[in-house]
Amino acid sequence: MVYRRNLQVIPGAGRSFMDQTRYEYLSPSDQTRGHPPPPLEKPYGRERETIALPPVESLPAPAITLRDAVARRESVRSYAEQPMTLEELAFLLWATQGVRRVVRGYYTLRMVPSAGARHAFETYLLINRVEGVRSGLYRYLALEHRLVEETAEAGVAERVAEACFNQPQITASAVTFIWTAVPYRMIWRYGERGYRYLHLDAGHVCQNLYLAGEAVGCGTCAIAAFRDEMLNEILGIDGEEQFAIYCATVGKHTAGAPE
Amino acid sequence: MVYRRNLQVIPGAGRSFMDQTRYEYLSPSDQTRGHPPPPLEKPYGRERETIALPPVESLPAPAITLRDAVARRESVRSYAEQPMTLEELAFLLWATQGVRRVVRGYYTLRMVPSAGARHAFETYLLINRVEGVRSGLYRYLALEHRLVEETAEAGVAERVAEACFNQPQITASAVTFIWTAVPYRMIWRYGERGYRYLHLDAGHVCQNLYLAGEAVGCGTCAIAAFRDEMLNEILGIDGEEQFAIYCATVGKHTAGAPE
Repeated sequence: MVYRRNLQVIPGAGRSFMDQTRYEYLSPSDQTRGHPPPPLEKPYGRERETIALPPVESLPAPAITLRDAVARRESVRSYAEQPMTLEELAFLLWATQGVRRVVRGYYTLRMVPSAGARHAFETYLLINRVEGVRSGLYRYLALEHRLVEETAEAGVAERVAEACFNQPQITASAVTFIWTAVPYRMIWRYGERGYRYLHLDAGHVCQNLYLAGEAVGCGTCAIAAFRDEMLNEILGIDGEEQFAIYCATVGKHTAGAPE
Repeated sequence: MVYRRNLQVIPGAGRSFMDQTRYEYLSPSDQTRGHPPPPLEKPYGRERETIALPPVESLPAPAITLRDAVARRESVRSYAEQPMTLEELAFLLWATQGVRRVVRGYYTLRMVPSAGARHAFETYLLINRVEGVRSGLYRYLALEHRLVEETAEAGVAERVAEACFNQPQITASAVTFIWTAVPYRMIWRYGERGYRYLHLDAGHVCQNLYLAGEAVGCGTCAIAAFRDEMLNEILGIDGEEQFAIYCATVGKHTAGAPE
C-alpha cells in the first residue's frame, strides 16, 4: 500500500484532516437521513435598511476578454484614491455570488460553481470608498441583490486590518470582501468532507473576484492569513456555525498599472 | 467569548482542523527555521519523451469577454464527440497553471494566484480525445510548458472513473484534469494552516479552467468526490507527500449548448 509509506513525513492537523475526510470514513449525511435542508441565506432583520444594487444587465458591459483578464491578473496591494462606483461593486458581487436561479426552494445556481450547488457562503464587505455608500461593514444579500448594513461604527476598517496582521491593503482598499462559510449548508449534504469543499468553493469565488476586478479597472489581493477568532468577532459570528474563510481587498488600479 | 458558544453543533474532523490551524497554534515553519525551499516542480526522468505545447501567444485569441464567460459558465457533464486540439489544451493549461516567471529560483508567478506564490500543484491529465495525442495519463510540466506521459496502459480512463464513483463524464470527457498537491511546498512556508491554502488555491485553478473552457467552446465539471487512495494509486503518488486534491472534466460543448 504505497499511500501509507510516508505517514510520518508531514504529521499534524492537515494530514489528519485529509485522512479523516476520506469517503470511507464518512457517516451518512443529514441529507441522506432525511433532515430538511438549511436556509439558503442567513436571515436579516426585515426592519433593517437595505441598499438596492443596480441589476447587472443595466451596467455598461466591461469589454475585457477572458484571456486578457487572466493574463493581466496579479495580486495588487496598492490602490488609487479613486472610489469605486456602486455599479462596479454590483458587478463584482454578481460575478462572485450572483444568483442565477433558485431551484425547488432548496438550492441555488450561481455565477460560480459550488459542490452540490450548496453555496455555503455569506459575503461581508468592508466598504471604505464606494460612491454613495457610507463607510462600514455590510453584507451582500445574494437572493435580493442588495446590501444590508452590519455596522457603521468608527474604526471597523482598522479592526479588520488588525485581525489580518495589519496588512496595509485593507485600510487602503476601496472594498474588502470577507467570505464567511455557514458550514452546515455544506455538511448537511457531504458530512465532514464538506470542509474541503468549503475551501475549494471559496477559491472559485475569489478567482472570479480577481478576474472581474480586472474588468472594472481594479486590482485584487487575496488574504488567508487572519486571526480567525478576532475576525469572526468583528463580523459578529460565532466561528462555529459561521466563520470567516477567505478575504480579498479590491481597489482601483493606480496610474501606470495595467488598465 | 461568542465564538465558542456552539462548539457541539458541528463536531468532527472539519471543525478540529479549523481549530488546529488557527494562527496561534502554528509552530514556526521550515522557512522561518532556515530550511531550504523545495523544488518548484516534481522531477521527471530526463530520458522520457515529452510533448511540446504550442506557446499561448501563437494561438488565435479567443474572443469571449470575461463577463460572458462568467455568465455562461455552468457545470457541464455531457460533451460532443469532437476532440480538442492541442492548441486548446495548451490554452487551458496556460490559464490554470501557466508560469509567468520564476523569481530568484525559489518561487513562480503564474496565471493564478497562490498563497505566498507557493504554487504547490502538479497537474495530471487523463487525455481521452486530443488531436495528435495518444490517449493516456500525462503530466503538465509547467516550467517547460510541455507534457510528459505517465502511462498509456489500457483502461486508465475507466480506473480514474471508478476512483470517482463512476461519474460518467470522466470517460466521456476530452480531457480530465487531476490536480495534485505537493503539500511540503506550501507547508514549508505556512505550516499546517497550509492545508487550508492548498484547497483555496485549487479552487482558483479550477475556476480558471471553467472560464477558459468557455473561451474555447468547452464545458467543464469539477469533481471533488473521489476515493483518495485509489486515485492516488492510479497516479502513482503516495498520498502523503503528494495527493489528489481536485479534478475537472472538460469537453467540447454539444450542439445546442452555449458556444
